[in-house]
Amino acid sequence: MAEAISTWSTLASRHAALRFIDINLRGAGQVIFQNNPLTGLLFILAIAWGAYTGGQLDIIIGAVVALIIATVTAMVLEADETSLNQGLFGFNGILVGAAVPTFLADGAAMWFILVVGAAVSTVVMLAVSKVMKTWETPALTFPFVLTTWFLVLAAYSFGQLPIASMGPPALPHATASAGAAEALSLTAVLEAWLKGPAQVFLINNPISGVVVLLGLFVSSPWAAFFAAAGAAVALAVSLGLGASIGDITAGLYGFSPVLTAVALGCVFYNPSLRVAAFALLGTIFTVIVQGALDAGIAPFGVPTFTAPFVFVTWLFLLPKSDLQPHPHAPIKGGILNSKSKP
Amino acid sequence: MAEAISTWSTLASRHAALRFIDINLRGAGQVIFQNNPLTGLLFILAIAWGAYTGGQLDIIIGAVVALIIATVTAMVLEADETSLNQGLFGFNGILVGAAVPTFLADGAAMWFILVVGAAVSTVVMLAVSKVMKTWETPALTFPFVLTTWFLVLAAYSFGQLPIASMGPPALPHATASAGAAEALSLTAVLEAWLKGPAQVFLINNPISGVVVLLGLFVSSPWAAFFAAAGAAVALAVSLGLGASIGDITAGLYGFSPVLTAVALGCVFYNPSLRVAAFALLGTIFTVIVQGALDAGIAPFGVPTFTAPFVFVTWLFLLPKSDLQPHPHAPIKGGILNSKSKP
Amino acid sequence: MAEAISTWSTLASRHAALRFIDINLRGAGQVIFQNNPLTGLLFILAIAWGAYTGGQLDIIIGAVVALIIATVTAMVLEADETSLNQGLFGFNGILVGAAVPTFLADGAAMWFILVVGAAVSTVVMLAVSKVMKTWETPALTFPFVLTTWFLVLAAYSFGQLPIASMGPPALPHATASAGAAEALSLTAVLEAWLKGPAQVFLINNPISGVVVLLGLFVSSPWAAFFAAAGAAVALAVSLGLGASIGDITAGLYGFSPVLTAVALGCVFYNPSLRVAAFALLGTIFTVIVQGALDAGIAPFGVPTFTAPFVFVTWLFLLPKSDLQPHPHAPIKGGILNSKSKP
Repeated sequence: MAEAISTWSTLASRHAALRFIDINLRGAGQVIFQNNPLTGLLFILAIAWGAYTGGQLDIIIGAVVALIIATVTAMVLEADETSLNQGLFGFNGILVGAAVPTFLADGAAMWFILVVGAAVSTVVMLAVSKVMKTWETPALTFPFVLTTWFLVLAAYSFGQLPIASMGPPALPHATASAGAAEALSLTAVLEAWLKGPAQVFLINNPISGVVVLLGLFVSSPWAAFFAAAGAAVALAVSLGLGASIGDITAGLYGFSPVLTAVALGCVFYNPSLRVAAFALLGTIFTVIVQGALDAGIAPFGVPTFTAPFVFVTWLFLLPKSDLQPHPHAPIKGGILNSKSKP
Repeated sequence: MAEAISTWSTLASRHAALRFIDINLRGAGQVIFQNNPLTGLLFILAIAWGAYTGGQLDIIIGAVVALIIATVTAMVLEADETSLNQGLFGFNGILVGAAVPTFLADGAAMWFILVVGAAVSTVVMLAVSKVMKTWETPALTFPFVLTTWFLVLAAYSFGQLPIASMGPPALPHATASAGAAEALSLTAVLEAWLKGPAQVFLINNPISGVVVLLGLFVSSPWAAFFAAAGAAVALAVSLGLGASIGDITAGLYGFSPVLTAVALGCVFYNPSLRVAAFALLGTIFTVIVQGALDAGIAPFGVPTFTAPFVFVTWLFLLPKSDLQPHPHAPIKGGILNSKSKP
Repeated sequence: MAEAISTWSTLASRHAALRFIDINLRGAGQVIFQNNPLTGLLFILAIAWGAYTGGQLDIIIGAVVALIIATVTAMVLEADETSLNQGLFGFNGILVGAAVPTFLADGAAMWFILVVGAAVSTVVMLAVSKVMKTWETPALTFPFVLTTWFLVLAAYSFGQLPIASMGPPALPHATASAGAAEALSLTAVLEAWLKGPAQVFLINNPISGVVVLLGLFVSSPWAAFFAAAGAAVALAVSLGLGASIGDITAGLYGFSPVLTAVALGCVFYNPSLRVAAFALLGTIFTVIVQGALDAGIAPFGVPTFTAPFVFVTWLFLLPKSDLQPHPHAPIKGGILNSKSKP
């Protein structure tokens, strides 16, 4: 496998067309932090399978179109070439392109804002990265979240953008504990678990979840492990706290914790028992934040997207330079006049 | 014209009273980025005309009072003198002063919060500038937006602050495509177009729009061009997406795109075809964000003010140092460890 | 008094158990910026008294448990030792622990999120401090506000987290001026004034307010003065603007202005007439922002906590390096390329 990827990389570096395909595949892979074209290909297949079985081919078409537009925009803007080659200007685009046809009805105006949004996602990626690198912290999928919030929220103001499946806006209200959790069959629990990784790409399908985990495995077994573990932790916590069974079985409590677990467990920190405990705290908190944002966003009638992952992972990554390598000597000065002063 | 302004500047530098007037006029001009006292005078006339024809003289009185208070506050705080002399502590104040009497009813409490808000706008300008200059990005009109959101939102909690014209708070709901766009006469389209520049100052009047464009022209023909072009693009996009005809004909889809177009087209980037294309993307996205924020802010019952302009322009300005001069050599390191690291 | 504290400090530095107690007491004291164990003890007593008289002992238990967990988390993460010893990782925890049982009903799930939230508050403190120290500005109580917003908002999504006293979510609506202010007895005004300092710890009790002021006095008479003055200014402004009499007499317009007045008046600026005027402006604006956020947060059905204090104090502290020492020589360059450039 490693050899095949290496051969592909050599080929891609020589032919402009292959290189362009390589960049786009890596862009898909970067949705879950994998700079790997095969992973990206499997992620695209996972979206395609979900779109096909769900009878919504515009989702996979939108995803691929937006991925390409985001990448081309980065080329036209002559963005940093290293980042470009690693696919860092594609992963927000592909998510914009999968999300817009999921929530808005097909039509000329929908494709217009999808194309504009895909191009803008690259500008937003540059902007957010510029801000966050002040603290050596990555943009994560915030460019996707922010851009797509604007696009789908705009549908409430524009008559040419009919809504397919979101909202209606409503005030949050306290839920009674349903107690339906006990009635869940083992199959339902297994499907809910596998849908977590699939919903990272807005796909409600357990097979797609398996393909996503496979895509992670070929690139990084640790990433596959933390994704599976994150989805399991999310399932346990959301069931324990009495979340909506419908949301749990659709994987909607799983996708952000999957991303948090991978990010904290093995991408931005090196795997260890200590780091696993830290990632566990972050993953549990992501489930709570998912519940909070679901309530908080209800009056606006739009989805949270991966905002719970982004906010929690930022909070858990920002202290990184204070935490690792673990400072055994006391740091001079207090928290307010620290070493990372600009 | 240039000679007259030069003579005025010489006079103003010699007499304290004239200098004070000069600073305030430049403050008015800086609402659309013009460090030019004649432009500022014309902008004040545009507000006065709109207030007079609308029968609401408290708007022009509030605008001038708040402009002066914001400037005086900057003097008392001994803020940076270069910025002060360019009017950079006045433009948020004049907007606070025009907005408060537009949305709240006249009365002692209204004038109290207008005065407090005008003084605070200068503190907020210092604060936001301090944060944004980390990334060499200006505060834009965000100090006005943030301060005035607090002031007018507070009206829902304070019995002494009756609301004149905003709200009521409501959940967003999907709009049917009215199709009324075809019924618009050429005159209505022309008026809607001219009201865009006028609504930058919260004035719903096409003559005021002409005066604003004239004010821009005497300082910078490019700025007048981009303002007119931005309003036209906004008109086309908002009509095409099926926005509310009432909002379109009042110029409410035009004022933020006007500011985005001028800022991106000729103020913070140098005019060129490439920059014009970038500004066009930003201007189109500003219309979408206006629609999004109109829906998103509905539950709070307050206006968006120029927030769509601020958010989009920040996103399109933050990458500036990565985009210009266009880097033809690959940048060392990826997007996360770039040259602009502090 | 000073001698007793000095003896205690010497003892605490020698015995690990005493040192741990000392750190936690200082953590309680840091809620109002006092690095003083006796102050912290008095603040804990103020909470205990309010919890006891209100019949809600879980509030004081939650506060102490969360204080300890937040401190232990900082130790496990090997956070900066100077900050740790000053109690800077405890004050957000104690507030999380007092807030959760105030707004959510007792139960296993409540204690679970209280423990998770207390640990997370330390991570958030590290994250927010990292960001804010870019501009030499402290995190204030924002880690408490952010963490607890997530915790209590999540209650609307989780059936195992019944709500005790907040919400229900509602759209803001304009209030008629009640005119009931004239009917307030002198006793009611006095109690409303004393409840301001008490509500910093979410306690609705005038005796607790006296204990809080006493706690400040033993550490810093200036702090006690500004706290009392801030509460008085808040009372006058909120009455004058016609705020809800129920909120005023419960001290809910007082706690954020108390914190703003102390922070701006004598903690982050040195007391002087000029600084007192600046703090007065900030304190008045905090009352307006409290009214604004009360309206703005109503659709979400959660409290503002100390957000009005945090936002206003950040805005008034960010310009600090531009304001003090007062620059008598003109600064080179404009507001956008100033001396504090990284």
